Order: sequence, then structure tokens, then C-alpha cells
Amino acid sequence: MKASIVTIGTEILIGQIIDTNSAYLGEKLGEVGVEIVSRFAVSDKREDMLNAFERAKNDSDLVLITGGLGPTKDDITKKVLAEFFERDLYFDERQYEVLKVFFKMINRPTTQAHKNQCLFPTNTEFLPNGMGTAPGMLFEFQDTIFISMPGVPYEMKHITENHVVPLLLSKQENYIYHYTIQTAGSGESVLAEMIEDIEDGLPSHIDIAYLPSLGKVRVRVSGTGVNKVAIEKEVHDIVEQIIDRIRKFVFGENLDTLESKVGEIMKEQGLSLACAESCTGGSISRLITSVSGSSAYFEGTVVSYSNRIKQEILGVKQESLEKYGAVSEQVVEEMISGALQVMNTDYAIAVSGIAGPTGGTDEKPVGTIYIGVGNTDQQHIRRLQLTKNREKNIEYTSYAALNLLRRMLTGDLEN
Amino acid sequence: MKASIVTIGTEILIGQIIDTNSAYLGEKLGEVGVEIVSRFAVSDKREDMLNAFERAKNDSDLVLITGGLGPTKDDITKKVLAEFFERDLYFDERQYEVLKVFFKMINRPTTQAHKNQCLFPTNTEFLPNGMGTAPGMLFEFQDTIFISMPGVPYEMKHITENHVVPLLLSKQENYIYHYTIQTAGSGESVLAEMIEDIEDGLPSHIDIAYLPSLGKVRVRVSGTGVNKVAIEKEVHDIVEQIIDRIRKFVFGENLDTLESKVGEIMKEQGLSLACAESCTGGSISRLITSVSGSSAYFEGTVVSYSNRIKQEILGVKQESLEKYGAVSEQVVEEMISGALQVMNTDYAIAVSGIAGPTGGTDEKPVGTIYIGVGNTDQQHIRRLQLTKNREKNIEYTSYAALNLLRRMLTGDLEN
Repeated sequence: MKASIVTIGTEILIGQIIDTNSAYLGEKLGEVGVEIVSRFAVSDKREDMLNAFERAKNDSDLVLITGGLGPTKDDITKKVLAEFFERDLYFDERQYEVLKVFFKMINRPTTQAHKNQCLFPTNTEFLPNGMGTAPGMLFEFQDTIFISMPGVPYEMKHITENHVVPLLLSKQENYIYHYTIQTAGSGESVLAEMIEDIEDGLPSHIDIAYLPSLGKVRVRVSGTGVNKVAIEKEVHDIVEQIIDRIRKFVFGENLDTLESKVGEIMKEQGLSLACAESCTGGSISRLITSVSGSSAYFEGTVVSYSNRIKQEILGVKQESLEKYGAVSEQVVEEMISGALQVMNTDYAIAVSGIAGPTGGTDEKPVGTIYIGVGNTDQQHIRRLQLTKNREKNIEYTSYAALNLLRRMLTGDLEN
Repeated sequence: MKASIVTIGTEILIGQIIDTNSAYLGEKLGEVGVEIVSRFAVSDKREDMLNAFERAKNDSDLVLITGGLGPTKDDITKKVLAEFFERDLYFDERQYEVLKVFFKMINRPTTQAHKNQCLFPTNTEFLPNGMGTAPGMLFEFQDTIFISMPGVPYEMKHITENHVVPLLLSKQENYIYHYTIQTAGSGESVLAEMIEDIEDGLPSHIDIAYLPSLGKVRVRVSGTGVNKVAIEKEVHDIVEQIIDRIRKFVFGENLDTLESKVGEIMKEQGLSLACAESCTGGSISRLITSVSGSSAYFEGTVVSYSNRIKQEILGVKQESLEKYGAVSEQVVEEMISGALQVMNTDYAIAVSGIAGPTGGTDEKPVGTIYIGVGNTDQQHIRRLQLTKNREKNIEYTSYAALNLLRRMLTGDLEN
């Protein structure tokens, strides 16, 4: 099955919004064995949309459309879809009921714009939107399936996961099995070199993909075949071989994240955690608390953005700040001790650095960041030398700190 | 002048890389009045590329191609371009000299792959790449200009800023002008209804678009015309009319964010800020500190995830926790007071709630969140009733709290 993605919206074309939806859809469709052959971004003008629908139809069996649904006037997607399919628009009473219930729940009035939102092309199959008011729509037209979804990422994802993926799976002849090895602390080319011979020896129905993000690489092994049990076993055998080679970078599998994995270990061992963050500004605690149930092990954080807070709440010594500077091994050590004491936890993470883009010196250029983890017995501090990009530095540092804690908890840092 | 963007690379289609280049080009071209009419992402297969070049040529007067240039085997862009233009490839001695000088400078040897990199279609006009080895290329073909650039973002940006933008400016007849009104605290349909008559009365060369994200909507007014001064004035007049209507939701313009705006006001008034976060887990401080220079007004945060930390560090009373619960107006009030006192700042933000997806009761279901802002004289607390989605609740709450602080700082909450 071949698919195309059509993204609607002038805001994408003129660069006000970066199109992350298409990357998400590319990955999800790949997982269920659907190949994306083309991707179009067009304005929300009638002719441009008609043109894109026609081109996408020529390229593929499945056309995924995102964007251009919603209550305001610039959302003309449904009208143009109806024209393209040569169908009429009708007012759907049931969708209007759903919408009224939704707005009653959040205590807002329904407007005429919302009523207009309930006009649909005839023969629309609805894909319920659990996160918003505009439903996904499925149309069959001349041997091509068209699926139109709202552009808001979490709404689009909800519809994709709950309706589009199951539908595509039901249409597959072959069984596709993916197993993802989650790694941190190494680049993709280093990992690829470590398992080069395994990859070279793979049969044609097994693939390895490297999916890098800041500080992490997912290594995905995929197998395709008619026999579910056989293909799963084959993939598992290869996964085992790979893990054997790259074990020191592996932190989990499939849907594991560094933050969920750290939480799992803390819960198992009955431990508690606190943070002291300076340049990351709350990013590490934000990650830790993104895990539902993190209150079982996470006590809290002091974001000590100023030196005064470092001293007054965390008890960092004035002389350490003066002698070594706020961005130093010594200060991070004292921040760990301070967090352990003030919040009375078993473990603490601390970070201090120059996130940038300004504020560097010759000795400590922008991107100099100290991360540390420890308990009352032992502390491990690392100096990172990162980029001039503030956002990237904060994100990378947060994951590096979590990974350092994970390695300490699993005994990987012992001498 | 109409333009299309063609992005080459399988890694973009399957979602391994998020295409940020196209957004950048869209914005840059918009600034010089070139309208992007379509955008294609294709694999690096010959047929797909030829197909995309043909389509892009049909759509526009200018085709910008990124990706698919460089020393590795899969970079066949130049070969396919030569085929598309019906031109031969030739070895360019001068480009090879440039390349040799570059590699000598970084102390690396040149390889056969680099030599192959110096094959170009005949009649190529070179756009020097100050950041890497593959130059940009310009071709005129049947009344369409093709510009091909490397996919590495900083190389592509360098060529765009230094060569593409000046070229386009020299060719412009029409001028396009965008002005974005940044709003928070209202949905897009309510805003649309408030300015419906203004929108209905617009001339055809002026457009309004609504760009929603969680808790915020950008209202963008765009105008096209030959006279730069006249079109800017016309857009500004309409922007003023719109702002008059929706003033209570407007927090800024163009590239302003809630976090940058709050920072701006604090700096202007010489104020300082601290946070006490519970269910948002550091998300508000993460936003505040994403602004470079925020250390000028931001002191720090206590993420008091457990009740113990609320009591021990922020001084929330045991009896308040017992009588009203951690998620209550009273506790948020005490968190504000605690943050003001412990961190000795002029203002504080505090949040406590049930982010979900579990943990609700009949009286306080999942999504019940109290946000508060205040100084030693005055506090403003609001109760939010949000969704069951943890990530959405945290994000929405963070922006709502920042907006509440902004409104307090601008006197919008006074009686």
C-alpha cells in the first residue's frame, strides 16, 4: 500500500508553523508497512487543494490530509473535498449533538460557527476525535481511501492511533513486527559501526532503522512475514544479538523513556528523588513529573536560578561560588548535598551551566554544563561541552542527567 | 512571483527528520513578497524527483530544492537535475580548487567522492556556500528559475540569506505584508465572531487567518499590493480595528510569546519573580527560563510535588492541607505567600491541581487545577476545569498562569 500526505494551511507554507504532523504520520505508517511516496503542503485555497488531492490520488492508494478543519472561515477543506468527490454537503444532527455536549461540559456556548462545523460531504465515515470537536473523516473514492484529520497535533495523533492505524493493520496481508531498543549516550554512526556485521547479514525481510533525537537513538528492528510466531522469534533473536553488542547504551525497549525507566527503578527499590536545577530551569523535573504516578518517588525540585537561591535554600557556600563560579563541579556537588538535605531524599540530581546563547567566558564557553547525581555516600559529576543553542542545550542536558542517574541506580557507574 | 519548495530525502518522508528547512524558506520568501504555492517532499529516487520537479515547475516561477547534495552515494540530485534540464554533467575545475582549499584548511584529505562532487550540469550558476563544501546552484529553464541547495540547515540558510534573498528582492513587483496579533484566553471561534463584520468587509487583497495552539490563538492579517507603504498602512489600520475589539485577549504581536512578554514587563518595571509549582512539575519555570536573559527577573522555583515539601519549604499549613486538600484555593494562596517569602521576590506564581489521568474525586475530578499569582498586597486565584490528558493539562495550565500574571502586571485584574 502506498500513501501520500497532504498538509493544508498557509501557516505551514509561510513557515509560521513547522510541520511535525507529517513526520509523525511517516513514522506511524512505516510501522504498519505503508510506504509514504509523496508529501504535499498547500495553501487553503480551493484550486491548490483540488490540485493536491488529484496529485496525491495519482501517487497512492491512501491519502492522509491534515489541517484545514475547524470552526473558522478559513477552514474550507470539507467544501473542497465535497467538490472533489462530487458530493453535496449536509448538516449532521448527530455530530452537532456531540459538539453541544462537549461545549456544555467545558461550560462554553456553541456559536453559529460551530453549527457550520457540522456540515459534511455525504457518505462521510466519521473517525471520532477524543481530544477536540472536529472529527476525522474517511472517504472511499475511485479505489483510493482519503482520510482527513484536524491539524492540531494531539487531535491528529489521537485519531491516527485509535482509528487509522487499526484500519491499516486490518488491511495488511503480511504481519509486521517492530521491536525498538532504546539507547542513550551514543550517536547513531557509532552504534551502526558496532553492529555493522549483524546488519550486513540480515535477510531481506528484516530491517534496522536508526531513529535519532537529542542525546538518544532508537534502534528499531522490523520483520515482515506471514507467520506471526516465526517472525517475532526471528526479530527477538536479532534484538538479543544487538543488545549484547551495545549494552552499555541501552536503557529500555519499545515505549520506555528515560524518565519512565528512572521512575520504574526508583519505585522497585523504594527510593525517593529530588532535583536542584539551575540552567535547565525546571526541565528535568518537568520530564520526571510527565510520568503519571511520579509522586510515588519524586518529592520536588529547587530551581535555583539565582546565586542567592543557591545559597539560601540549597546551602551552597558563598566561598565556593566566589572561588569556582556557579558553573563548577564544586557548586554542583553542593547543590546535590543541599537537595538531599533540604528535601530529605535518597537521591538527587543537580545541574549548573551556561545554556547560552550568551554568557560564556574563555575558560567556560557557552555550552559548558555540569551535571551531577548522588546520594549521601557517593556523587558522580560530569562536565558537558555543548552548543550555542539554548533550547538544544537544555533538552540534551536534561536527558544526560536522567541517564547518569539511571546508570548510577543500575550500578553502571561503580568502579 | 510564485514559488514551490521541493525537499529531497527518504529520511524526511519516513519521519526520521522533521523538515524545518521548508518553514524557514517559507518565512524568508514571504518576507520578500514571494508566495509559496506548494511544497513537495520526495524520496531520492530518480522518478520521484523528476516528477516533483515537473509538478513544481507547473506550479511556479521559482523552484527551491533542498537536500540531496553532498559526497555520499545516495546524492543523485545533480544527475537528475541534468537529466530534467537535458544538459550534460561536466567537471568544474574551479569548484574542485575551492574544495581542496577548504579541506586543506580543516586538515582533511580530499577523496574520490569529493572529486565526484565537482560534477555539475552545464550552465550552472554557482551560489557560494560559506559554511560547507556543496555550493548552491541556479538554473534558468523554460521561464522557471531552479535553485538547488544542500539540506544541512545552516548551509541552506547561509546561501538563502546571502544569495537567494537579494536575488528575489531585485525581481519583486508585489509586496506582501503580514502582521500577527498574539492572543491568549479565548478560542478561535469566539475571536472570529467578535470580528466577523471586519472580516466580511475586507477587500480581496487582505486576509485574516486564525492559528490556534493550546490556550493561545494567533490572528494573522496579510495584505498584498504594489505599494509597500500603502499596504502596510492598510494592514495596520485593520490590525488596530481588530485589537480594539479583542483587546482583553491580546498579549502581544508578531514574534512575542507569553513568556517573553511577561519578562519584558518585569524588566521594564524592575520586578522579580518566583514560582511554586505542584502539578505542573516545573513546566512554568521551564517556559520562563526559555527566554534568554530571564535571570534578570527570575529568581527560582520550588517544585513542591509532595505535601511535605509544600509544608517544609513553602510553609503551607498542615491544617490547610487537611481541611481543604492540596488542590484548593487556600493552599495555592499559601504557596504564593511561601514563594514570595522564601525567595524574597516581588511576585509569585503558584499552581496545584490534579493533572491526571488518575487521582480525581467527585468533588475535584481530574483536570481540577488552581492557578494563582500575587504580591504581598494582592492575590488572584482561578479554578480551571480541564481535560483528562496529563500533557495537555500541564501545558494549558502553564500558559494560563503566565497569562494571569501578565494581566495582573498590566492592571487588567484590578476592580
